[in-house]
Amino acid sequence: MKRADFPEPVRALIGELKRLPGIGPRSAERVAVWLLQSSKADPTALAASLVKARETVSPCAACGFFATAEGCELCDDPKRDDHMLCVVEQATDVLPLERSGSFRGRYHCLGGKLSPLDRVSPEDLRIPSLLRRVEAVPGVEVILALGADVEGEATANYLAEMLRTRDCRITRIAQGLPAGGGLEHADELTLVRAMQGRRGI
Amino acid sequence: MKRADFPEPVRALIGELKRLPGIGPRSAERVAVWLLQSSKADPTALAASLVKARETVSPCAACGFFATAEGCELCDDPKRDDHMLCVVEQATDVLPLERSGSFRGRYHCLGGKLSPLDRVSPEDLRIPSLLRRVEAVPGVEVILALGADVEGEATANYLAEMLRTRDCRITRIAQGLPAGGGLEHADELTLVRAMQGRRGI
Repeated sequence: MKRADFPEPVRALIGELKRLPGIGPRSAERVAVWLLQSSKADPTALAASLVKARETVSPCAACGFFATAEGCELCDDPKRDDHMLCVVEQATDVLPLERSGSFRGRYHCLGGKLSPLDRVSPEDLRIPSLLRRVEAVPGVEVILALGADVEGEATANYLAEMLRTRDCRITRIAQGLPAGGGLEHADELTLVRAMQGRRGI
Repeated sequence: MKRADFPEPVRALIGELKRLPGIGPRSAERVAVWLLQSSKADPTALAASLVKARETVSPCAACGFFATAEGCELCDDPKRDDHMLCVVEQATDVLPLERSGSFRGRYHCLGGKLSPLDRVSPEDLRIPSLLRRVEAVPGVEVILALGADVEGEATANYLAEMLRTRDCRITRIAQGLPAGGGLEHADELTLVRAMQGRRGI
């Protein structure tokens, strides 16, 4: 006797859900059953929002952030300071900075970071368009807001080298103790960098 | 200056994903970005499988398991034993039993369990159709495979009372130590039930 299983359309849905990041086989099954059984579920709305987002959202040709046919919220905002250009690895890195309210200039998303192990070389990043944007605004401050890991360091060093001959000021966001973190929880490298970055008060 | 955020279609997608069980705001954002950026993602296929599952899958009128226009895998299988009827709370309870290979009869999904606190009363469960199915097969064994919690106990007692006057044999799945579990990890109630359920060897 064949052991019963979900009908094929449910199995197909579970298969698609299982491919999402962070969703294991058991969560995929739970989500699929909830979508089909719960009165609060609206799978049609989820399907529609998927199709709409896929069809209408694409990277901004200038900065690499998410844009629609109506344009790019970052590039189109006339109130942003053109003389500050914040370079981030991923488009998703923009939002934490925006939410912090600590920056009001323009952004440039590289689309990754240099990583020989992952076969990411300079040609894979949005560097030519960065250089063009820097050259278009003499004296611009280029803030390298890259990660504090090895690849972030390497990418920052590479960009600093490329930008050295351009008319711009190159800065890098600070590394040190995270807010609320005590010294006893900080690793050695963080403490080294916090010490190196000390400032007069 | 307005702080930038995802374009509206992305925010709508995140909003729909956030409603899924077990998906928090951060996972929803991560899944949405992955769906839009990863070359491995196929949001169109996910959308299509959602719509197809919603449109083609509905509860079987007889047993309450997931069925399609082609029928119900459980009710249509001619090899299953009509003289054994396993009563479960949810349609999803069928699959663990099927995967265990321990049962080869018919199923009946109640669609819930009695729970005054959640306002689930007998009228909310698929009890009339259960009684009809029991009456249709004189001498059938009705196996109550309900949970070992208070509501499962109450539901089992209620069903046993309803079935007492029918021509059927009522059994209940055993409670005791879970496989692989030592006595030191078992709670008192589990041990009480394991002791009460002891059998000669």
